[in-house]
Amino acid sequence: MKFCGQCGASLERRIPAGDNRERLVCTACAAVHYQNPKIVAGCIVEWEDCVLLCKRAIEPRYGLWTLPGGFMENGETAVEAAMRETMEEASARVDVIGLHTVLSIPHANQVYLMFRARLLEPAFSATHESLEVALIEESAVPWQQLAFPTILHTLRFYFADRNAGHFSVHVGDIVRVDGRAQFRAPRPLPVS
Amino acid sequence: MKFCGQCGASLERRIPAGDNRERLVCTACAAVHYQNPKIVAGCIVEWEDCVLLCKRAIEPRYGLWTLPGGFMENGETAVEAAMRETMEEASARVDVIGLHTVLSIPHANQVYLMFRARLLEPAFSATHESLEVALIEESAVPWQQLAFPTILHTLRFYFADRNAGHFSVHVGDIVRVDGRAQFRAPRPLPVS
Repeated sequence: MKFCGQCGASLERRIPAGDNRERLVCTACAAVHYQNPKIVAGCIVEWEDCVLLCKRAIEPRYGLWTLPGGFMENGETAVEAAMRETMEEASARVDVIGLHTVLSIPHANQVYLMFRARLLEPAFSATHESLEVALIEESAVPWQQLAFPTILHTLRFYFADRNAGHFSVHVGDIVRVDGRAQFRAPRPLPVS
Repeated sequence: MKFCGQCGASLERRIPAGDNRERLVCTACAAVHYQNPKIVAGCIVEWEDCVLLCKRAIEPRYGLWTLPGGFMENGETAVEAAMRETMEEASARVDVIGLHTVLSIPHANQVYLMFRARLLEPAFSATHESLEVALIEESAVPWQQLAFPTILHTLRFYFADRNAGHFSVHVGDIVRVDGRAQFRAPRPLPVS
């Protein structure tokens, strides 16, 4: 961002009065332009022993597999966003069962909210966002061809919970360590 | 927002190709300016039988009571944001125990992520954001002077869980019904 959305003048990086970090500030009208993380909302869609995976038809990660999900929009709730994205990417109608993972990705300025959901009928299809949509058993998940670390860890938590017979909400971060993305429990570690 | 952050030309509202809702689009360079909900992260800080409340020294809701919390920043995790806000608003050092509420507010374009946290030592103070900071028992909570519906419902869930001897993660929405904010379980209702 180089120009002020309020008046069109050029922006500069400085710390506004009363703040403690650099912001983009207008050189003419002094408007401060904050930038904040975005929410990605999506679903782990269940049907019998399977979950619904989508093969991406768009960049980034074209051709890799993902869970349906995308950026939450203004004016909607997180659950509505997760259901809308599931319709857009997989033409699938679902009911949300509950929250499953909350993953912060500080280097991408994103927070993923992934919900468990139930497919209302076994109807789904490829869309302009997905080359292919499929119901896939745990043993057939293409672990080496998943689009994002958030999807990998969400699916790992999901199958671990399902196999243990008990679902819970998993909170943590996806961070880069030696160039590789990995899951990290919140720092400092919970004390409960 | 009236002007393009990329080139400074004026913006117009229209549906970009391949999209399905109106966006702010630049009349010169065609850059699309998305606007998305923001995350508010905060803490329910526990010390013995009390929780830490802050009397707001800033607008909106100057003089009303709240839990420490504020907008998550780029480059941090949700837990880091909740801890930072607790330091900024109450000068209090905490360890996060776990997630407690996830509340969407579609009319405000916000999602609250409120965490339970443990005060590391009984040290806290007023700040430039808080007129007063206090440890308050359930029976002394100023229910009629709370700053936001999200805070009211987060505290209600917290004390209900604590009195029941079991904490869980509460997901839902704060919506306006007949001009009054109220909690709503996710729509459609969970089927689990």
